[in-house]
Amino acid sequence: MADIENCDLKSLSPLQLFEKVTEQGEKVRALKAGKAPKDEIDAAVRMLLSLKLSYKTATGQDYQAGLPPRDLASINNGTKEEDEDLVDPWTVQTSNAKGVDYDKLIVRFGSSKIDTDLINRIERATGQKPHRFLRRGIFFSHRDMDQVLHAYENKKSFYLYTGRGPSSQAMHVGHLIPFIFTKWLQEVFDVPLVIQLTDDEKYLWKDLTTEKAYEYAIENVKDIIACGFDVNKTFIFSDLDYLGTSTGFYKNIVKVQKHVTFNQVKGIFGFTDSDCIGKISFPAIQAAPSFSSSFPQIFNGKENIQCLIPCAIDQDPYFRMTRDVAPRIGLLKPALMHSVFFPALQGAQTKMSASDPNSSIFLTDSPKQIKTKINKHAFSGGRDTIEEHRKYGGNCDVDVSFMYLTFFLEDDDRLEQLKQAYTSGELLTGELKKVLIETLQPLVAAHQERRKQVTDEMVKQFMTPRKLAFEF
Amino acid sequence: MADIENCDLKSLSPLQLFEKVTEQGEKVRALKAGKAPKDEIDAAVRMLLSLKLSYKTATGQDYQAGLPPRDLASINNGTKEEDEDLVDPWTVQTSNAKGVDYDKLIVRFGSSKIDTDLINRIERATGQKPHRFLRRGIFFSHRDMDQVLHAYENKKSFYLYTGRGPSSQAMHVGHLIPFIFTKWLQEVFDVPLVIQLTDDEKYLWKDLTTEKAYEYAIENVKDIIACGFDVNKTFIFSDLDYLGTSTGFYKNIVKVQKHVTFNQVKGIFGFTDSDCIGKISFPAIQAAPSFSSSFPQIFNGKENIQCLIPCAIDQDPYFRMTRDVAPRIGLLKPALMHSVFFPALQGAQTKMSASDPNSSIFLTDSPKQIKTKINKHAFSGGRDTIEEHRKYGGNCDVDVSFMYLTFFLEDDDRLEQLKQAYTSGELLTGELKKVLIETLQPLVAAHQERRKQVTDEMVKQFMTPRKLAFEF
Repeated sequence: MADIENCDLKSLSPLQLFEKVTEQGEKVRALKAGKAPKDEIDAAVRMLLSLKLSYKTATGQDYQAGLPPRDLASINNGTKEEDEDLVDPWTVQTSNAKGVDYDKLIVRFGSSKIDTDLINRIERATGQKPHRFLRRGIFFSHRDMDQVLHAYENKKSFYLYTGRGPSSQAMHVGHLIPFIFTKWLQEVFDVPLVIQLTDDEKYLWKDLTTEKAYEYAIENVKDIIACGFDVNKTFIFSDLDYLGTSTGFYKNIVKVQKHVTFNQVKGIFGFTDSDCIGKISFPAIQAAPSFSSSFPQIFNGKENIQCLIPCAIDQDPYFRMTRDVAPRIGLLKPALMHSVFFPALQGAQTKMSASDPNSSIFLTDSPKQIKTKINKHAFSGGRDTIEEHRKYGGNCDVDVSFMYLTFFLEDDDRLEQLKQAYTSGELLTGELKKVLIETLQPLVAAHQERRKQVTDEMVKQFMTPRKLAFEF
Repeated sequence: MADIENCDLKSLSPLQLFEKVTEQGEKVRALKAGKAPKDEIDAAVRMLLSLKLSYKTATGQDYQAGLPPRDLASINNGTKEEDEDLVDPWTVQTSNAKGVDYDKLIVRFGSSKIDTDLINRIERATGQKPHRFLRRGIFFSHRDMDQVLHAYENKKSFYLYTGRGPSSQAMHVGHLIPFIFTKWLQEVFDVPLVIQLTDDEKYLWKDLTTEKAYEYAIENVKDIIACGFDVNKTFIFSDLDYLGTSTGFYKNIVKVQKHVTFNQVKGIFGFTDSDCIGKISFPAIQAAPSFSSSFPQIFNGKENIQCLIPCAIDQDPYFRMTRDVAPRIGLLKPALMHSVFFPALQGAQTKMSASDPNSSIFLTDSPKQIKTKINKHAFSGGRDTIEEHRKYGGNCDVDVSFMYLTFFLEDDDRLEQLKQAYTSGELLTGELKKVLIETLQPLVAAHQERRKQVTDEMVKQFMTPRKLAFEF
């Protein structure tokens, strides 16, 4: 027992703490089984409870026997600290009203910051003003963009891959972020694009039939097409559909599946022995579109075209795994560009949720609904009274209306003016909200207008495997 | 400690023993950590060693922490006894020269014996003399054949599904058993048939490329076609190929994968955390062809046609899992007919191995090779000297030449005569071997002749998804 008491619990990693709790639990059981003196058992139980408390403080999770702490950074040997944010494909949690600490995430995930140099290089390579998502650090992290740009500067092109899990018909404005940025990348670099709808994933994770998941996928495809992608350079596919029509996709899936163990997906995604084998093998299905040989018709059989994946940072675990496997199956590692999360109206502590209609502005909302939602639900960084606000000013760092404007207001100068006016107290919360309402209403209305024009024929065109207008 | 000492270890199941060892191991660790008196620790260690020995005696395996005993019968809550045979898709082990104890296997697997009543019923339903594999108990066990026959008698038909894992180009005569029997079933019942080549499985389990695995599959397909299947009623497919060309196959795979947990495949197939996720999810790929909706083109979109699977008993774990899942995804349970194993030339303790050329008669062997192999390697149940043999007679139960004749000699009377003559000592080992050589030589030569006539065009025909000549 001495060795447990003497060591500094705060210096232990969650996994080490987990092992201490397990060890102590075994000890208590052995003492009880061996009918040890009562005071000895009591002391051991107290120590167990205290260890469990330390574990909970460190990980934010209750200790569960046999279930080690989820540690997303395991591939990079990162360690999770006490006050760290939880970020994986299913959960985003932070206790900070400003949202997740992205600089720390870069260190933990082992990616690179998108810095001014890189942004300038993109500007030089494309001859275009960098997108506001780059100018404002919304796409903030990357892997191997230097190599992609170096190749591009030497006339070697690449293709884009992004995706969406169609968990419901309803998409909100936050869902558009990767698509808006991907469309811009497609235009300025003039490159082809594949978009994966993981309806199989949604079938596996949710209480849905395959038919319903596919139906959601098709509805989502309409919203994606409405973003304005070029049909000659874009292929959109549902897994449930495409897997049965491609001679290359399954072969790459099975190659990835051969080179990833259950231990690895347990470490990366937190799967347990009670998870279904579909979930356990799914990561390979999200990995495979990173390889151009998954799309023989699209790329005319060309096998090793570089892939660039724009996505929200929570999808990174899939692609860390993919990059780990790629060289072992003789394929190129995909490059990545990561975005921050789009905050819920209620604040930046969590991602928006498609299942809570008040957590976000949906692409189907009317101008009136948009106005009401923002006025009623958008978390304000303003002061409690007008007098206080005029005197001390508002806090843009936690104000959701201001955050949304950084995503959707194109004019940099105007945004800076708003920031100064709000911070100084000159601009009131209601006035800031009004700017946001006036920004989002036409944006959503225009989207609805474009979506109405998306026909079944267009959906079919985008989803038909065919050679894209591009030579590599 | 008392509770461990007092209980009768022999009455415990392997899993209970496993738990006892684990518990005792924890106790030893706790005593050591707690710096308990030396004699107390020593006693606990002695108990641990004795428990580990009991575990090994009961399971034939060394105790491994965290790795519960493999128990194939877990779905049926069967238990494995001390002297039991080990039978799963990768291992067949028995210490008995007569081979695996099939009656015990029926009890452990929870299947039913193919008895005289069932054989007579098949004869009545088809109007044909039962195949020698039925008459001689080579197909000895079944699941739900009563229901299949009942439906058939009421004009409701079914389809056949069998398969092969193409681990090399070379097939031996033992590999033909399921195909010979399936061909007979197809003829006498007049039903369609699908044959799966699990080249993806071989890629996952062996040190092979996907290209090589597919190449082996195609070579095997030629041998299968040479068995004489009707191209109008037979569809043969490679997983690596067909998965990317069927709109129904992947949907059924993902449905099965949603309803089977890692815990379950661990119990059924003995997978561990270090296995790749491809192996872990593979059982669903062998399960899916049990459902006619995996073959929309073949069955003209008809979804719930009854399936009957003739296979060697070692494949049963896949289909026990399939039958467990089927009702939960709204699909029919497949029925099964199980064959015994084909013995190696060296004796019935193990299955033949395609990697040892002397363990079996290959379909490519010349008449001379067949003669030499049988004379040199076929395990004999005869006596050491002619004098002893004449006096005491030979033992057909362990004589491999006689076993092979039960598989391949059609004439029942002749087989019975040979048995009596060998058992009485009238027939010598060399003479029995000569009968086998004269039986196998023309059989293999005829197969080679038919295989020569299999063209690439025919392979393509059999492997093209198309509606089979059958109405349900």
